[in-house]
Amino acid sequence: MTRLRIVVAGAGGRMGAANIRAVAAHPGVELVGALDRPGAAALGKDAGMLIGLETLGVTLTDDTEAALSGADAIIDFTAPAASVALAQAAARHGLVHIIGTTGCSEADDAAIAAAGAAGARIVKSGNFSPGVVTLAALVEKAARALADYDVEVLEMHHNQKVDAPSGTALMLGEAAAKGRHIALKDHSVRVRDGHTGPREVGSIGFATLRGGNVIGDHTVILAGASERIELSHRAQDRSIFANGAVRAALWAKAQPPGFYSMADVLGLND
Amino acid sequence: MTRLRIVVAGAGGRMGAANIRAVAAHPGVELVGALDRPGAAALGKDAGMLIGLETLGVTLTDDTEAALSGADAIIDFTAPAASVALAQAAARHGLVHIIGTTGCSEADDAAIAAAGAAGARIVKSGNFSPGVVTLAALVEKAARALADYDVEVLEMHHNQKVDAPSGTALMLGEAAAKGRHIALKDHSVRVRDGHTGPREVGSIGFATLRGGNVIGDHTVILAGASERIELSHRAQDRSIFANGAVRAALWAKAQPPGFYSMADVLGLND
Amino acid sequence: MTRLRIVVAGAGGRMGAANIRAVAAHPGVELVGALDRPGAAALGKDAGMLIGLETLGVTLTDDTEAALSGADAIIDFTAPAASVALAQAAARHGLVHIIGTTGCSEADDAAIAAAGAAGARIVKSGNFSPGVVTLAALVEKAARALADYDVEVLEMHHNQKVDAPSGTALMLGEAAAKGRHIALKDHSVRVRDGHTGPREVGSIGFATLRGGNVIGDHTVILAGASERIELSHRAQDRSIFANGAVRAALWAKAQPPGFYSMADVLGLND
Amino acid sequence: MTRLRIVVAGAGGRMGAANIRAVAAHPGVELVGALDRPGAAALGKDAGMLIGLETLGVTLTDDTEAALSGADAIIDFTAPAASVALAQAAARHGLVHIIGTTGCSEADDAAIAAAGAAGARIVKSGNFSPGVVTLAALVEKAARALADYDVEVLEMHHNQKVDAPSGTALMLGEAAAKGRHIALKDHSVRVRDGHTGPREVGSIGFATLRGGNVIGDHTVILAGASERIELSHRAQDRSIFANGAVRAALWAKAQPPGFYSMADVLGLND
Repeated sequence: MTRLRIVVAGAGGRMGAANIRAVAAHPGVELVGALDRPGAAALGKDAGMLIGLETLGVTLTDDTEAALSGADAIIDFTAPAASVALAQAAARHGLVHIIGTTGCSEADDAAIAAAGAAGARIVKSGNFSPGVVTLAALVEKAARALADYDVEVLEMHHNQKVDAPSGTALMLGEAAAKGRHIALKDHSVRVRDGHTGPREVGSIGFATLRGGNVIGDHTVILAGASERIELSHRAQDRSIFANGAVRAALWAKAQPPGFYSMADVLGLND
Repeated sequence: MTRLRIVVAGAGGRMGAANIRAVAAHPGVELVGALDRPGAAALGKDAGMLIGLETLGVTLTDDTEAALSGADAIIDFTAPAASVALAQAAARHGLVHIIGTTGCSEADDAAIAAAGAAGARIVKSGNFSPGVVTLAALVEKAARALADYDVEVLEMHHNQKVDAPSGTALMLGEAAAKGRHIALKDHSVRVRDGHTGPREVGSIGFATLRGGNVIGDHTVILAGASERIELSHRAQDRSIFANGAVRAALWAKAQPPGFYSMADVLGLND
Repeated sequence: MTRLRIVVAGAGGRMGAANIRAVAAHPGVELVGALDRPGAAALGKDAGMLIGLETLGVTLTDDTEAALSGADAIIDFTAPAASVALAQAAARHGLVHIIGTTGCSEADDAAIAAAGAAGARIVKSGNFSPGVVTLAALVEKAARALADYDVEVLEMHHNQKVDAPSGTALMLGEAAAKGRHIALKDHSVRVRDGHTGPREVGSIGFATLRGGNVIGDHTVILAGASERIELSHRAQDRSIFANGAVRAALWAKAQPPGFYSMADVLGLND
Repeated sequence: MTRLRIVVAGAGGRMGAANIRAVAAHPGVELVGALDRPGAAALGKDAGMLIGLETLGVTLTDDTEAALSGADAIIDFTAPAASVALAQAAARHGLVHIIGTTGCSEADDAAIAAAGAAGARIVKSGNFSPGVVTLAALVEKAARALADYDVEVLEMHHNQKVDAPSGTALMLGEAAAKGRHIALKDHSVRVRDGHTGPREVGSIGFATLRGGNVIGDHTVILAGASERIELSHRAQDRSIFANGAVRAALWAKAQPPGFYSMADVLGLND
């Protein structure tokens, strides 16, 4: 079987390094290109050296067309404008385009979806961890089935994290709200201290723990009369996002052109 | 709104008492009959007195037709022959029939399904806890999406339980096996001690804890590279089964005649 | 072996009923008296009938001296003034006096301790659950040994609880602070929402979950570099407090007069 | 403040590399020597290069006396004979000697203790994780206080582990047995499957989970009437053992010569 030929965009950044490492470690794929923006410090360096491995024979470049020639797929956790441009290039070349970029506007998302209609095989997700994406689907299903159970979202992260609750906790809260056909912002309770009164019926509560160098644990609890279900995800290290992106690329290669989510990759919408 | 009129079968037994208690406590339903088998010690007693409450005005009887007259629904955790006969009576009267009886043969199940086709509204389940039934659906979905993750099933029960693993643990293992399209019996690992060798790929492991008077906790773990999801159910007391049966009866009243599962009641098959 | 003869004070109240139930259920003890305050509605009723059991042959009275004659021990979850008076009576008669009363002033506590010096065998505690009291001792020890680990306290209670964090959560936080030789009030963080900045070194964080009819779960986490310990207590029902009080009474009978804590009962100070 | 000058023994092995990495990362210490056995492949190589870092300027040698000159401490996870010889060298030079070697005979342990009496500052432990050692002390204390609660030990490790239960699980079981003044081997229950009968009073149960690349999670449960405590340790990566050894070395430098345990380092015996 021929290996999937992958280009990593934003290769000089922290997430780019993680993606290079995942491609280098994964059977069935190989790194054939490494892109960074014009002027980036890492241009001209070898992608393997960047991540403390031996030479991979792939030099970082800002020449998109050269990097994409001979490629099957792009893995791209960069910035909205760069992702839109890469989606259009992917459409021209019929490539797989895996997008983990955050902060896209509606116009950006429309342009990316249009690239999917024009020949690219796009998978875009706010989170590429198979476990987190699966958990969100389970939370939605559970919140619908157990419609009168109290929903609580708990997360723990390392002691250097500066905001709360985590983006993933909010994503899980959104999944619960979707299962209930309500808007999270109208029903979330994010602080409890002192005299709170009884829990408001139908609300979704959040609680936050911080400590050590915990990568990220999340639990959604659905509590009813005399029973609870608890749905948890535990991340051991940050490799899960890059590994999920590689898994998405392998899946997308076998699909018709279009715009997909990580839930599609995992068959959660079947 | 008129209240759903419920007859409890097997009213003199332990699960019958739990069902009477749930009916008495639940808004929207009322107890109108209490059946027990001919010769049962509790015949002639008041159903409320049996459960340490005040008189409910419902006397235990072995006259099925009398008990069912004026009823909307039967809750029946008894024995296969009794449940088949009650299903046929439910078909004649167009009643809801909630069946928690275990040990039915294929012939029994066929006769019960036939009663569903002939006018009864039947919900039959091996477990009426909404949380457990939901968890099983989530486990099946997760095992399918995370097809290469290791599945482990853990349970804890009180120190008087005499068998292992619990029936619910096996039911959750079956759900995982169904999500994987494999047979649980060919892939389950129920003992680990001493030199075990590496975990067999694709197996489903079981582990058992016993202690105190724990009602029943179950956790299914799906472990992959650097992440895990853990799906747990915790039972606080045994009222959850009887309350689930009442919930099923209220749901079934609004359905066309037929044969349903608890997953149907919870909308898990939608 | 002769059974310990116990008088329950405040017998007409909710905690009094729990204490009567525990005495009735426990081998090695028997109920010989039931006190309530003058004018209480339950005076003259049988203690067993109050808790839905058969007659116990013990009538509620407001005559302390009559109730205590022939008794070995008093179990008392009432009010400060009543507890001080009972402690003095216990001193006169050389009785065991188990005090779960909350809200005592320093003067009350001094009067109670004086009764211990004058002949009573007193055990006073804010919490009679053996598990919670043990957990607090473990938390103190762990916080001292792992002096640079981040301490977080998590609790979950039912959806009708009107304040946060729970008294037990604060007690566990106090235990951690004691292990660190710091004052909890100067180091507790009770709210995290939005931009919080990094976790403050040496702080003790609290997080609160609410849902269903959960009796009370508490977890203290100590998180350091690449490892955590998590110390949890799960309460299944509220009988644990009354059962702990009976256990304390049996222990105290064999001690010299004095003023003891539940930690003494459990040998946690040995 | 001058930094503690550390020699790592067995520097060419896997645990030696972890110890070099911990010394290089820890403030307050520096690597001044790296020992390996005569004939080892890594002799003559730089200790930093061995672990994928830049040069540390310390070359692996088999000349113990040369390596120890100018050193304050040895970290040694090697073999019994080597550890005995190093302990005697540590005694001659008045050094700190941190021993993680396993498999020592009684004679080895006696020789090592004698070196402590003769001038070495020795810390020897079967586990240098501060969290695990603290947890074992808590388990012993809890098992003593809650003497009639059922004790269960649960562990989860990666899917390549070939034996069960883990050494740490057995160590925690030993801690519980010590708290009860019983011998673990007479009371452990390591398999539950099929018809088990009720739980044997006073036994200590073990259960094992395997999956993914889990580093190692352990939980000890003490379950009584209507309450449980659960005491858990979660390891995020394997750096905790080497970091604990460095912590032990810093502690031992300030102690009089003698033979100490990791529990002494953590003040758990105070």
